[in-house]
Amino acid sequence: MNMPAPTRPAFASWLGTTNDVTRTFLAATRIPGLINMAGGLPAPETYPAEAVAELARRAIAENPGDTLGYGPIEGLPELRDALARRFSADGLPLTRDNVLVTTSGMQGLDLIGKVLLEEGSIVAGQFPTYLGALDAWRPRMPKFRNLVLDDPALDAAALFTGAQFAYTVPNFSNPTGKLVDLAMRETLVEAAHRTGTWLVEDDPYGGLHYDAVPLSRLIELSGCRLASKPYDGPVLYMGTLSKEIAPGLRIGWVIAAPEMIAALTLAKQGSDMCTSGVTQRIALGAIEAGLIEAIQPAIVELYRRRRDALCAAMAEHLAGTFQWDVPSGGMFVWAVARDPALDTDLLLKRAMESGVCITPSSVFDATGQNRRAIRINFTRNEPEKLVEGVKRLATAIRTMQGNRN
Amino acid sequence: MNMPAPTRPAFASWLGTTNDVTRTFLAATRIPGLINMAGGLPAPETYPAEAVAELARRAIAENPGDTLGYGPIEGLPELRDALARRFSADGLPLTRDNVLVTTSGMQGLDLIGKVLLEEGSIVAGQFPTYLGALDAWRPRMPKFRNLVLDDPALDAAALFTGAQFAYTVPNFSNPTGKLVDLAMRETLVEAAHRTGTWLVEDDPYGGLHYDAVPLSRLIELSGCRLASKPYDGPVLYMGTLSKEIAPGLRIGWVIAAPEMIAALTLAKQGSDMCTSGVTQRIALGAIEAGLIEAIQPAIVELYRRRRDALCAAMAEHLAGTFQWDVPSGGMFVWAVARDPALDTDLLLKRAMESGVCITPSSVFDATGQNRRAIRINFTRNEPEKLVEGVKRLATAIRTMQGNRN
Repeated sequence: MNMPAPTRPAFASWLGTTNDVTRTFLAATRIPGLINMAGGLPAPETYPAEAVAELARRAIAENPGDTLGYGPIEGLPELRDALARRFSADGLPLTRDNVLVTTSGMQGLDLIGKVLLEEGSIVAGQFPTYLGALDAWRPRMPKFRNLVLDDPALDAAALFTGAQFAYTVPNFSNPTGKLVDLAMRETLVEAAHRTGTWLVEDDPYGGLHYDAVPLSRLIELSGCRLASKPYDGPVLYMGTLSKEIAPGLRIGWVIAAPEMIAALTLAKQGSDMCTSGVTQRIALGAIEAGLIEAIQPAIVELYRRRRDALCAAMAEHLAGTFQWDVPSGGMFVWAVARDPALDTDLLLKRAMESGVCITPSSVFDATGQNRRAIRINFTRNEPEKLVEGVKRLATAIRTMQGNRN
Repeated sequence: MNMPAPTRPAFASWLGTTNDVTRTFLAATRIPGLINMAGGLPAPETYPAEAVAELARRAIAENPGDTLGYGPIEGLPELRDALARRFSADGLPLTRDNVLVTTSGMQGLDLIGKVLLEEGSIVAGQFPTYLGALDAWRPRMPKFRNLVLDDPALDAAALFTGAQFAYTVPNFSNPTGKLVDLAMRETLVEAAHRTGTWLVEDDPYGGLHYDAVPLSRLIELSGCRLASKPYDGPVLYMGTLSKEIAPGLRIGWVIAAPEMIAALTLAKQGSDMCTSGVTQRIALGAIEAGLIEAIQPAIVELYRRRRDALCAAMAEHLAGTFQWDVPSGGMFVWAVARDPALDTDLLLKRAMESGVCITPSSVFDATGQNRRAIRINFTRNEPEKLVEGVKRLATAIRTMQGNRN
């Protein structure tokens, strides 16, 4: 019965260009004793498990049709309405037609890629660029133009022209943790309105301000330039409950012009048909009960203390090797090596051997060439762990430099 | 402040080839009085809402980390193990490495497309072909070869050669409701082993047998040809809880060779990162509690009665216009017009005016040319509604023929 196996059809060519860093990191959570400062992971102790458990029970018992049946591709109407209300602002009247519920923020990125990209299409991406966005768009094989948003000479309109869309994380960028200032926000919105290019505002960390007052969203600045209702401008605003309540719900949203929502809906139809009614009803219950606002102050306080602990330990142990800005929000510190020859892909290997995991800068560059920086997460671990992780990283650096010298 | 809107970047070209039939049908569930026999919708009264509500509460309260955090891309290990045990058989030893949990069966189709298709790649698809599969693969713009599985002259190996994969629904095909017999199953598996082409076995309806005894799965026939453990053959077996428990969980799975699971996992990473831990833990709890087996007899009995009611009404009212086989399982009757000139796209319009909705055959043909048949769902509605729906359809046919004559 056994025959020699014939040749299998080749995998699609994009698979040859991918990396398995995210998978390595998710698996790393299972290595005993490893201090994982790589992922963008919330602190599990912030999950409001009891409240969500009761919301889930009630949602299913009281709304079996909505929760257990197929629902509209765009999302439960009541949840779309709640999100439209939440993000409406002066100059930005939103309706249900502006809102698509997505199965996680990542799905929003995937759908945007499906709707706007073909092989060779151009994305103007904030640089360095969120790894997950690079992952989501890789199957469409776009080309990237780097938007360096702290470059005062940036010519946004020139970079936007000919691009299918621009991609930004204005609040505490992943990976750099930087807040894009109001002047640059206006520049980006102005360029989008002038060139017509879609402008993606990815905002998973908008609730995580530790020092600063929130700045206007890009979509709000865009709405103020329009008389139209509902909003039909070029900004796609993306959010998620992953950092506001819990990632396990896999609930995100895109807020955009109705024509864009309709196109994303067609893409979602062939991606997962509709988001789970169970998790959507939990999300709706959480929003209606004010759960996000109720738990946010404690999350912000917890993360601020952890940021401060990380940055203090870095100042003690890493200042000779790296430089960084203390982020005013978000989940990450971005540390750039003083020595341009330091290779952080190599450092990751030594760090894993020393029992600590950080993210090397190469994965935030579509070309993989940027190897001079690391991203360190401070939200997942307690202060003592963060300090120990930094010490292990310092050990790894010494090992690496010892080997080289 | 108001400027003339500049031209927006074009949407990706596949969007111009799509249809919005599924969306129309999901929206049709909200038209008052319309009898919807179009969708592939389970009967909501079969959803075990109380049991699922309690499973959800316990899952979250007892496993907050698993349910509310990020999980492994491949799925919860315990759920993968449970699925490996469930689908193992003589000659088919499965391990966790053979299993990917997907966010719905539709996501499995999307991931297969991402991994195996590029523009112009060939799919050998059972014809007529499940609409959702056409939707899922449209962004990759493949070409289709039609596999007509009730054609005794079918040369499966010739059709498989050069195709990236073959796609089949052996148990009560969507749309035709046909059961692929054992001889044809062997033919398909033989062709896959001989040519190396991947063979997708999509099995959402495998639990819905009303008359016949279940036949061996393609992946079981394939496993018997191999000595290898775990399974590393060419079949990808896909399943879902949508018809066994409830669609709102959006839980599906792919069982395949570990190298294929690894590739699909990379594609899933950029699609939604991981499936909700909430719905995965509900699924695991339901499987462990034997909930599927507990509710299946009542579902089968309910659907058998509805199939019989539909087919009796069709025999009374539609036999002059259509011919069909009574399906021995699944959710659909496929009725082919006696008059080859009858256009079922037009019939859908008249039917909607008469207050009934069915699915025209054009949407199950990648070219849209097959306009001679309709798919009628019998699981969603009570017998009296099915009878009334058939009468309305007969009215619509008379109206259409009256207009033409």
